[in-house]
Amino acid sequence: MSTESRILCPQLQQKVMSADEAAAMIPAGATVGMSGFTGAGYPKAVPGALAERIKAHNATGAAPFRINVLTGASTAPELDGKLAEVDGIELRLPFQSDPICRDRINTGSMNYTDLHLSEVSQYAWSGFFGKMDIAVIEVIGIREDGSLIPSSSVGNNKTWIEQADKVILEVNSKQPLRMEGMHDVYYGTALPPHRKPIMLTEAGQRIGEHYLRCPIEKVVAVVETDSPDRNSPFKKPDDASRKIAEHILEFFDREIKLGRLPKELLPLQSGVGNIPNAVLEALDSGPYKNLTAYTEVIQDGMLKMLKSGTLSVASATSFSLSPDGIAEFEENIELYREKIILRQQDISNHPEVARRLGVIATNGMIEADIYGNVNSTHVMGTRMMNGIGGSGDFARNGYLSIFMSPSTAKDGKISAIVPMVSHVDHTEHDVKIIVTEQGLADLRGLSPRQRALEVINKCAHPDFKAQLLDYYERACASGRGMHTPHLLSEALSWHERFEQTGTMKPE
Amino acid sequence: MSTESRILCPQLQQKVMSADEAAAMIPAGATVGMSGFTGAGYPKAVPGALAERIKAHNATGAAPFRINVLTGASTAPELDGKLAEVDGIELRLPFQSDPICRDRINTGSMNYTDLHLSEVSQYAWSGFFGKMDIAVIEVIGIREDGSLIPSSSVGNNKTWIEQADKVILEVNSKQPLRMEGMHDVYYGTALPPHRKPIMLTEAGQRIGEHYLRCPIEKVVAVVETDSPDRNSPFKKPDDASRKIAEHILEFFDREIKLGRLPKELLPLQSGVGNIPNAVLEALDSGPYKNLTAYTEVIQDGMLKMLKSGTLSVASATSFSLSPDGIAEFEENIELYREKIILRQQDISNHPEVARRLGVIATNGMIEADIYGNVNSTHVMGTRMMNGIGGSGDFARNGYLSIFMSPSTAKDGKISAIVPMVSHVDHTEHDVKIIVTEQGLADLRGLSPRQRALEVINKCAHPDFKAQLLDYYERACASGRGMHTPHLLSEALSWHERFEQTGTMKPE
Repeated sequence: MSTESRILCPQLQQKVMSADEAAAMIPAGATVGMSGFTGAGYPKAVPGALAERIKAHNATGAAPFRINVLTGASTAPELDGKLAEVDGIELRLPFQSDPICRDRINTGSMNYTDLHLSEVSQYAWSGFFGKMDIAVIEVIGIREDGSLIPSSSVGNNKTWIEQADKVILEVNSKQPLRMEGMHDVYYGTALPPHRKPIMLTEAGQRIGEHYLRCPIEKVVAVVETDSPDRNSPFKKPDDASRKIAEHILEFFDREIKLGRLPKELLPLQSGVGNIPNAVLEALDSGPYKNLTAYTEVIQDGMLKMLKSGTLSVASATSFSLSPDGIAEFEENIELYREKIILRQQDISNHPEVARRLGVIATNGMIEADIYGNVNSTHVMGTRMMNGIGGSGDFARNGYLSIFMSPSTAKDGKISAIVPMVSHVDHTEHDVKIIVTEQGLADLRGLSPRQRALEVINKCAHPDFKAQLLDYYERACASGRGMHTPHLLSEALSWHERFEQTGTMKPE
Repeated sequence: MSTESRILCPQLQQKVMSADEAAAMIPAGATVGMSGFTGAGYPKAVPGALAERIKAHNATGAAPFRINVLTGASTAPELDGKLAEVDGIELRLPFQSDPICRDRINTGSMNYTDLHLSEVSQYAWSGFFGKMDIAVIEVIGIREDGSLIPSSSVGNNKTWIEQADKVILEVNSKQPLRMEGMHDVYYGTALPPHRKPIMLTEAGQRIGEHYLRCPIEKVVAVVETDSPDRNSPFKKPDDASRKIAEHILEFFDREIKLGRLPKELLPLQSGVGNIPNAVLEALDSGPYKNLTAYTEVIQDGMLKMLKSGTLSVASATSFSLSPDGIAEFEENIELYREKIILRQQDISNHPEVARRLGVIATNGMIEADIYGNVNSTHVMGTRMMNGIGGSGDFARNGYLSIFMSPSTAKDGKISAIVPMVSHVDHTEHDVKIIVTEQGLADLRGLSPRQRALEVINKCAHPDFKAQLLDYYERACASGRGMHTPHLLSEALSWHERFEQTGTMKPE
């Protein structure tokens, strides 16, 4: 299929130009809404062209040229990496995972606001981010009437197009055109007091349209591209990941036997990464059939489950596939297009739907404390890793929230179970299950002291168990409140010790 | 009206007995679901009779007689106080505010699980609390067919009656019978995967029935009572409360002018206490008309607003009135019964509805940190005050979350704004607005460092401002991560200093 045939709207054919010409339309100080979610469907050419322009501008010694960059979630080196490299980002939200961005955030030269992903569009509509000047959106085709065929992620694209004064489209001919029809863009959202129920009662249901509406007159540029999404090869699950997956499957089995979960489980939400992928792989080799997924991201593991029939349908807002996964997807796209629905992220992550469907939320974490508080974002309390992403949308409102991590990091020098987490993203009220390769702690209905023993005994690495019990027992004996016993002077000392000595273990 | 005429069901007239006889049916080790929410609609007689029985039992030196007590929310001395006094409670959930209970919790002799109030019924249905042996429910009348007229709170009563093997009813003739018809009990809830949309699109809408269904054969006892609800007189708003209310009204005015809130605002959720009541009073003397409330609790301030027309309708799960408020309610019950709807707490606090209606959540707090994390429950990180209650249901899913506190406590020795909160109930992702008498910090869309300056400058007491800025600046200069700068060795030192010296101020 030739590139040309992807731009069927005559007026928009007139707007085709180079990425440099398009990037020239983005002024300094602009607030720019870009497509992109977990490295899929982000613009491939304009951000780099803009970065070149910024670099040239800044070399003149003029006042720095910076923009605010709002996306769906993470993008790729072509977007976050290039713009961060030239120090072109003033404010970044709602999620990122780029190493150069991360460095700028943690050295204080970039403002970053990590937000619940379901809330971003509501914030934008409410005007809290100010005016959106321009949207830069990757699509896979433009139809005759100017409506847009979304790409490998939907993210916030609907909102950005609606909110921006001007729209730049990138038409990426590398994306398979047979994705047309997989998307479900819902135009029934509103700000309160005008909201109506979201009438989704099953993960696989469609409530919207296949295409993004876009007023032709808003489009100021159309740029043709032909580049693949960022795609990192998946590592085979390591031993810890496999053990974590085993614990979770045992737990599911038990809950099914106790009549607390149906044998098709409940719709799965699965965070991105190797541990969630190991869980998916384990589910696929188990006895499960006709599971469903109501999640943010389709990873390789879900493709396999869809193919084998373990999973009957998967709803998400984006793909995040390895090169092998992309090849598999493209080869069997006729199968997958019937079983995958891509929605905007305010629907894929909607609290109303997550609660109604009773999502089982499985997400990674950096650390948990003995009372069940989880840190998903901050290394040693101060350094941003990536962001909370959608984990809060699903963990708070889902039926079960499972947080997973190997029990140690950095060659055993860091314990993922600590007396007190150095940052809280998920409170004791929201964390139902904690799993490490050591075991699974079921915290439902337990008081804080009951939780402490459950977490220490089931999840802590043997190297840190005695040290944790010692902390807990001395906290209980300290004469302070016995509801959540702590020694405030020591609560964060494990993190301090790591900073000072390179290990959380006492000397 | 005579007491007799309140029990119209012939079979249940046969079950009338004394509180002592009824209490004798509750075995040691039982899990008991009791009515009651913010000191309204709790059983007045059976818990006290049970406490006497426990006391007598324990005096024999036999194995301790303890039960698990599950309620809607807080009750009163006749329930929590009496049972806690005889050490009769093994596990208490999901919320309490009784001083004797609190002491048992904080000395470690009672397990307490504080939960999001919207989640309790789902937990119970799922079997996570184990089997419910018996329910003790206050009603204001029993109809001929055995259905029940709910009392001054609905709470979890629907769930307890459905889940319990046996039911003890207390028919309280002190409660005005004209409350009949005010309640809206919704029988459409289910566990996933059978959940349907909750079709509430306005605070004042009715979707259920006036009565609680109750199988006659489950009822093992009917006890007649004639006692008022716990009701504490309201203090006149103090200076700090009035200033907090002023800041919030200014904020609302500005948001309306900016077109970010409609002039009728959005449905108000208002926590319990003197500061929320001051906000209601201020709203009532402002220019507002036809506001609505979608909240947990109707306090005195809401009655006034309903009478004046400031508020057109209030949806809640319970009353919490002063003696004057009760008198006013009873005197003008014909007015109030048209404007107040009492729902079960899984609907009054439902995340789906809170999100759809776009609730403005206003709740008190113990402390906030400079990055916008809020502690609602733990004094100095270890001692439970009351519990999270419904604040998480509303703050996470509402449109705006406002957390309020005077900037200092204990005669100025404690700062409500600290470097790091000693416990997190509401994370930086969920806290939009922080208000003290000093000012209002609007955190929407800000990065952590931007938030820190906003919180310190707007909300901190002058006595602590320099000390907070000093902490923040040294944290920024420490070479650690600049996303959320902290000095871990000092982050909780203000709380430690208070424990050691009785003040958070440096010597």
